[in-house]
Amino acid sequence: MSQKPSIPRGTRDFSPVEMLRRNYIFDTIRRTFSLYGYLPLETPAMENLTTLLGKYGEEGDKLLFRILNSGDFLSDIGQEELPAIAASELSSRISEKGLRYDLTVPFARYVVQHRDEITFPFRRYQIQPVWRADRPQKGRYREFFQCDVDVIGSDSLLNEFELIQIINRIFNELKIKVVIKINNRKILSGIAEVVGEKQRITDITVAIDKLDKIGRDGVRKELIDRGISAEAVARLEPVINLSGSTETKLNELEKVLSASETGMKGIAEMRELFGYISGDSFGSEIELDLTLARGLNYYTGAIIEVKSLDAAIGSVCGGGRYDDLTGIFGLPGVSGVGVSFGADRIYDVMLHLNLFPPQTGSATGVLVINFGREELPELLRITASLRNAGIPSEMYPDPVKLKKQFAYADACKIPLVIIAGSEEIKNRQATVKNMSSGAQTTISLSELPAYIKKWGNVAS
Amino acid sequence: MSQKPSIPRGTRDFSPVEMLRRNYIFDTIRRTFSLYGYLPLETPAMENLTTLLGKYGEEGDKLLFRILNSGDFLSDIGQEELPAIAASELSSRISEKGLRYDLTVPFARYVVQHRDEITFPFRRYQIQPVWRADRPQKGRYREFFQCDVDVIGSDSLLNEFELIQIINRIFNELKIKVVIKINNRKILSGIAEVVGEKQRITDITVAIDKLDKIGRDGVRKELIDRGISAEAVARLEPVINLSGSTETKLNELEKVLSASETGMKGIAEMRELFGYISGDSFGSEIELDLTLARGLNYYTGAIIEVKSLDAAIGSVCGGGRYDDLTGIFGLPGVSGVGVSFGADRIYDVMLHLNLFPPQTGSATGVLVINFGREELPELLRITASLRNAGIPSEMYPDPVKLKKQFAYADACKIPLVIIAGSEEIKNRQATVKNMSSGAQTTISLSELPAYIKKWGNVAS
Repeated sequence: MSQKPSIPRGTRDFSPVEMLRRNYIFDTIRRTFSLYGYLPLETPAMENLTTLLGKYGEEGDKLLFRILNSGDFLSDIGQEELPAIAASELSSRISEKGLRYDLTVPFARYVVQHRDEITFPFRRYQIQPVWRADRPQKGRYREFFQCDVDVIGSDSLLNEFELIQIINRIFNELKIKVVIKINNRKILSGIAEVVGEKQRITDITVAIDKLDKIGRDGVRKELIDRGISAEAVARLEPVINLSGSTETKLNELEKVLSASETGMKGIAEMRELFGYISGDSFGSEIELDLTLARGLNYYTGAIIEVKSLDAAIGSVCGGGRYDDLTGIFGLPGVSGVGVSFGADRIYDVMLHLNLFPPQTGSATGVLVINFGREELPELLRITASLRNAGIPSEMYPDPVKLKKQFAYADACKIPLVIIAGSEEIKNRQATVKNMSSGAQTTISLSELPAYIKKWGNVAS
Repeated sequence: MSQKPSIPRGTRDFSPVEMLRRNYIFDTIRRTFSLYGYLPLETPAMENLTTLLGKYGEEGDKLLFRILNSGDFLSDIGQEELPAIAASELSSRISEKGLRYDLTVPFARYVVQHRDEITFPFRRYQIQPVWRADRPQKGRYREFFQCDVDVIGSDSLLNEFELIQIINRIFNELKIKVVIKINNRKILSGIAEVVGEKQRITDITVAIDKLDKIGRDGVRKELIDRGISAEAVARLEPVINLSGSTETKLNELEKVLSASETGMKGIAEMRELFGYISGDSFGSEIELDLTLARGLNYYTGAIIEVKSLDAAIGSVCGGGRYDDLTGIFGLPGVSGVGVSFGADRIYDVMLHLNLFPPQTGSATGVLVINFGREELPELLRITASLRNAGIPSEMYPDPVKLKKQFAYADACKIPLVIIAGSEEIKNRQATVKNMSSGAQTTISLSELPAYIKKWGNVAS
């Protein structure tokens, strides 16, 4: 039974080299979340379809991966019924579970389900894969990781401020230069209100959200197509085009939005948030971007999006405040705010800009050459002494030709090789070969672990 | 649209407290794998059904979670065909992908698919969830994690020895007392041969594998039921019942199996492996267990199973050598050996025996009390100074009553609370309260991070 093996379209294997790099990103993100007092949470890959359906719009429902009920999944459907059933109906009869589409809805579900055990404000992070049946293309996968951090149960803007600190620290540590764009849904609502299209806030934000992709003319056309009056579009444009400092923009906006209570509240929130920001120092650029809309319609306050300044790749992080996410599951009135880091895009940016530190290329520090049965007991002791000193080490498992063992170290990018043949062992010594420089040093066995540790420090 | 939220049967949410404990296990396992020179690998949650089907026996095929094809999945099936199609056939027509059932088959698939990029011997570890549509029950879940470590492309028994070192180190670090049971499929084959049932090796191993569950009488009955002759069963029993030291057992076996080349090879392998083992020191018990069979029929050499000595919970780790796992995917003759750690069972054992260190209960070290607008700038600086010193810290986001903020620290098991009101700030001081002892210390702001770090060391 021979088959040509492959994996489903839009999914990926991650080789050791890729995994070491990915873990460098995940570790940086996880360490920072933890440093800011957020705690880990995980939810199952499968959720009930009732949890997922209707939460991501019509398009999202179609992109859910559904799990076939196990066992005799047709047993409840009469054979005479089958011909009359459309695919969409059959699907809902033979499938009750789906793969998680994002981490936000499962988080909302978790909070409602466990409301009695949770101490609010609840600060959690969640780093897990999500699945979407999107058409695969460059940079878009059917399985990808999200790294979410949220606090729920507090409406203080200090939470938004803290998330911006987290974003800044993570991208500083990864050495990715970014701009953190901030806007506020209440300001967008206020604008919709004063241009006379209060009910059309979703259409307006969806159109503005495409500004980067389709340009100003495209947005204008899209707004008209969505039925926004030409007059309203004309009144909208100068506001979207506001420029200058944050202070200038907010002052101008204040004049325009004075009649909208919601709009004025948005301005006050932005003043407070940018007040915190101006009192701190950031490596990243931070700006108020009135064209930032973000498509998801559960946002109600601050919205945040992060872009790499050196790679044209879309956003690498985004999020915002939601005042009623848990309402759909029966727990209204709990405000939260969170952002999500796109690990796959961050990976692509770092690879493109060559930002991975060299040591992520190999986790194993030392290969001990296998000379065969006679030297074996001593070689096992040497290998054990290195591991006991915390040095990731391996011994070649077979006593094959030295050339092959060195080629293995080379191919696996193992930086150091230890040569301890019968002669060296007799003298209680070993030779350490640096695979990149070719330099060799002979050292006593008792000092070997300390020497390697020192070398490791010098190298990193 | 209010719903009572829940998750699918047999799946679990992991709360922060559970996650911190689980991460303690995963970190220990990952660190040890890495210390022994194994590198991380990840494969997609979804595999093509052609990769998965037929690899786990008939029972396994039924336990696969299948993914419904996206889009109009019935389009290829004529409506007039539908009534005639049985569930099993329909399922194969509307579903091409399944969730991974274990990590071994995806690993074999990966090795064959990427054979040209891989340097052999290939040492990889893989820590990912797997899914099985088993009937959920206590300790058995439909989503659970496996932690696999394998080396493929080397038939040296030093690999088996190294895996036993890894097992020993991991359980020592987790403080779980275990017995590592070892047997060899070649010995079992040899036994089947000399009792005259060479072709029935699978029936014999499957029956012997149940010894723990159904006892000696049960195994005897099962062997007879499976069509093994009463004479063969009678000849089998004394071999299975062999006792004494490893040396004694192997010497006795050697007499019985002298006519079986395979059996004698198995004995030689065990002599070599136990030779390595006796030259090292282990915290765990290690024994040759001739009744150990392990059900999976791809094993061809050493087989390994690990049991907790203090908790009756089945095996916490197991594996063995396979000489032709990649053959099913078109790459024959590549020998490998590996073991898999069951994180969920290890978790249950550690919880039952109270083995988790107390600090896994909370990752956040400090809560800074929020006194309000006036103190805020200084409180933000204090929080930042702690984080910059690497201390996981948070400030309560709202300036609510102190009682509520202390109750939060208590509920979240945050060990230290920092009180810096206007009076303390004026004196450039803060009070540190130890939440478990109630003790309070006043300290200058400049010394605060160093003091907390020291306290943290004392506490852990």
